[in-house]
Amino acid sequence: MQRALQIAASPGVPLGPNPRVGCVLLASDGTVVGEGYHRGAGNPHAEVEALTAAGDLARGATAVVTLEPCNHTGRTGPCSEALIEAGVAKVVVAQRDPNPVAGGGLERMAAAGIEVEHGLLVDDARALNPAWSFAHEQGRPFVTWKFATTLDGRSAAADGTSRWVSSPPARRDTHVLRALCDTMLVGTNTVEVDDPHLTVRDPDDEPLPSQPLRVVMGERDLDPDRRIFDDAAETVHLRTRDPLEALTSLYRDHGRHHVFFEGGPTLAAAFLKAGVIDEVVTYVAPMLLGAGKPAVGPLRIRTISKALQLEITDVTVVGEGGEANVRLTLSPGSRGGD
Amino acid sequence: MQRALQIAASPGVPLGPNPRVGCVLLASDGTVVGEGYHRGAGNPHAEVEALTAAGDLARGATAVVTLEPCNHTGRTGPCSEALIEAGVAKVVVAQRDPNPVAGGGLERMAAAGIEVEHGLLVDDARALNPAWSFAHEQGRPFVTWKFATTLDGRSAAADGTSRWVSSPPARRDTHVLRALCDTMLVGTNTVEVDDPHLTVRDPDDEPLPSQPLRVVMGERDLDPDRRIFDDAAETVHLRTRDPLEALTSLYRDHGRHHVFFEGGPTLAAAFLKAGVIDEVVTYVAPMLLGAGKPAVGPLRIRTISKALQLEITDVTVVGEGGEANVRLTLSPGSRGGD
Ligand SMILES: NC(=O)c1ccc[n+]([C@@H]2O[C@H](COP(=O)([O-])OP(=O)(O)OC[C@H]3O[C@@H](n4cnc5c(N)ncnc54)[C@H](OP(=O)(O)O)[C@@H]3O)[C@@H](O)[C@H]2O)c1
Ligand SMILES: NC(=O)c1ccc[n+]([C@@H]2O[C@H](COP(=O)([O-])OP(=O)(O)OC[C@H]3O[C@@H](n4cnc5c(N)ncnc54)[C@H](OP(=O)(O)O)[C@@H]3O)[C@@H](O)[C@H]2O)c1
Repeated sequence: MQRALQIAASPGVPLGPNPRVGCVLLASDGTVVGEGYHRGAGNPHAEVEALTAAGDLARGATAVVTLEPCNHTGRTGPCSEALIEAGVAKVVVAQRDPNPVAGGGLERMAAAGIEVEHGLLVDDARALNPAWSFAHEQGRPFVTWKFATTLDGRSAAADGTSRWVSSPPARRDTHVLRALCDTMLVGTNTVEVDDPHLTVRDPDDEPLPSQPLRVVMGERDLDPDRRIFDDAAETVHLRTRDPLEALTSLYRDHGRHHVFFEGGPTLAAAFLKAGVIDEVVTYVAPMLLGAGKPAVGPLRIRTISKALQLEITDVTVVGEGGEANVRLTLSPGSRGGD
Repeated sequence: MQRALQIAASPGVPLGPNPRVGCVLLASDGTVVGEGYHRGAGNPHAEVEALTAAGDLARGATAVVTLEPCNHTGRTGPCSEALIEAGVAKVVVAQRDPNPVAGGGLERMAAAGIEVEHGLLVDDARALNPAWSFAHEQGRPFVTWKFATTLDGRSAAADGTSRWVSSPPARRDTHVLRALCDTMLVGTNTVEVDDPHLTVRDPDDEPLPSQPLRVVMGERDLDPDRRIFDDAAETVHLRTRDPLEALTSLYRDHGRHHVFFEGGPTLAAAFLKAGVIDEVVTYVAPMLLGAGKPAVGPLRIRTISKALQLEITDVTVVGEGGEANVRLTLSPGSRGGD
């Protein structure tokens, strides 16, 4: 299973709608007769790759797979069926498939007389695809909220200007994080005020070939000339104010697993109050404004003991000298004192 | 000189009104005939210690001293006089004495026929006593502004409560920094709202034997029952609103070199506008309030390009797990775009 996890995490696998999966086929004497991993949407599944490599040696072998073999026909046929047909004797799985559409592979194989097992190194397997697992388990995408703030908690100056609170290295770093998500989300007012493009660019400022979905949320009509509506990437305007409804729709109707949420403060407060922020990334810029737009809108917290508590999971200095910003990554905790 | 710097920085020397100084006496063949360093107010100066150790061997020797030997009679006689009387042939000094009262030692010794030199490793010598040097050079104490803030830049909740924004390890860390200063300063309103004690306590919460001066600044009368006025340490109420006047008085009338300034936000804004913040230390707590007292009062900055720019000099995580706070240390930069 260690080997299956390792090949599943092979570098260069593009993140996409599909999870990373690794499969190792072992003969009864323990020798490896085939290996495979999934290389991204449109490519064969890990099990099929391994079966192809093993050929006739698959008969009677044990398949060790990081994720339960699928039971539905997508772009490829169901893998559980392929394993049955190849005459595999035993299947050892780490993580069961949390995707309601694809699950049931273990039952199908057991019914066909294959010995099945699951749960081995399940945490490591889940960590291969944390947002994908989260989304299928919760029925909504994992939400990373990113904001840039001054040392005194301002996201824009008194006149509304916010370009640029964060330094050039921090902005480049943001593009690296955006590229790990499949969706970018902002509020209608940020689109009106800032007119962001919401594309992912490489360090040479060139757009990446594959772009996350751009989403703007809010009820008002927006000027179709805003940059978010150009053809650099797909864009969806979700005309709702209900964070959970918006996220559920992104999962259900658009197959999204990881939202990179970039504000503004009003929508961020709504997401925080709805309890749908799963990770916080903030870039602290070493500047003071003394006034201006707060980084977060009102949360209905009146006293310090009720503050929304987070836990720091990473602190990194991004950039050097006068361009250094501090990136804090935090996971949500409980609301203190409740 | 390396050796003189090294012994000057001997551990255990209490910080006090006097600078750290080291002195090495060398015979003409280069052998060390005496060494000394200053062990804090009330103890002999480094030169006197070294002369005592050398006895008759001081005659014709070279004295290597990190700081220009003093020329005034304080609790001890002038060191320049002692070196002349001992028959020292040459004096090599790193830093000239920036204290206008004590300077002139080199001229006095040169007039007595001693060969004098200065400037060797001057930066290292200055770094032995940065706040002391700064204060004598500028005629006011060095100011370290410390504040605690939430991730969204709040120093207190909507109802004014701020105990505790920072975690217990961050508060203990603050006491370590306070102990490095000779003065603690707050505004009148912080005394009224928070009633801080402003003493320095050790990790067992016991007060240190030697306490910094407590200073409250502002024109209003204060209730004498406030904890800052108890007899745990000396306290001064500076009835002024002029930051430079207050600081000049702390240097001139109270011999203070390093102020640890702990707010509040209103007075901090006044100090920032007056350009008298020399270092910023902020503890960022991983919590969100969404409302409440901003960490800094208004600075008359309307647009992002005019933000007060600082430079990060240190980032340290203080405490662990849910108690982790991030301590940022910054030095002042320029106001951008001016
Ligand atoms: N520093 C940073 O990281 C950062 C990031 C982004 C923006 N900003 C700054 O923030 C400012 C814009 O932020 P903003 O707070 O004004 O706008 P926003 O959060 O982008 O958008 C607020 C709008 O979202 C809609 N909305 C949708 N669901 C909502 C809900 N549940 N509750 C409330 N509103 C909801 C509402 O408009 P409808 O009427 O359309 O429903 C609301 O007016 C700009 O100054 C921008 O420069 C800074
Ligand atoms: N998180 C933290 O690090 C931290 C630290 C300290 C305080 N706090 C919080 O901050 C709040 C208190 O702060 P604050 O801003 O209200 O009060 P403050 O800054 O402590 O004191 C303000 C007062 O200082 C006097 N003052 C002296 N010189 C001044 C000048 N040049 N400009 C303006 N005022 C001057 C004025 O009173 P006169 O009329 O007497 O002249 C003024 O009202 C409390 O809620 C406290 O909990 C937080």
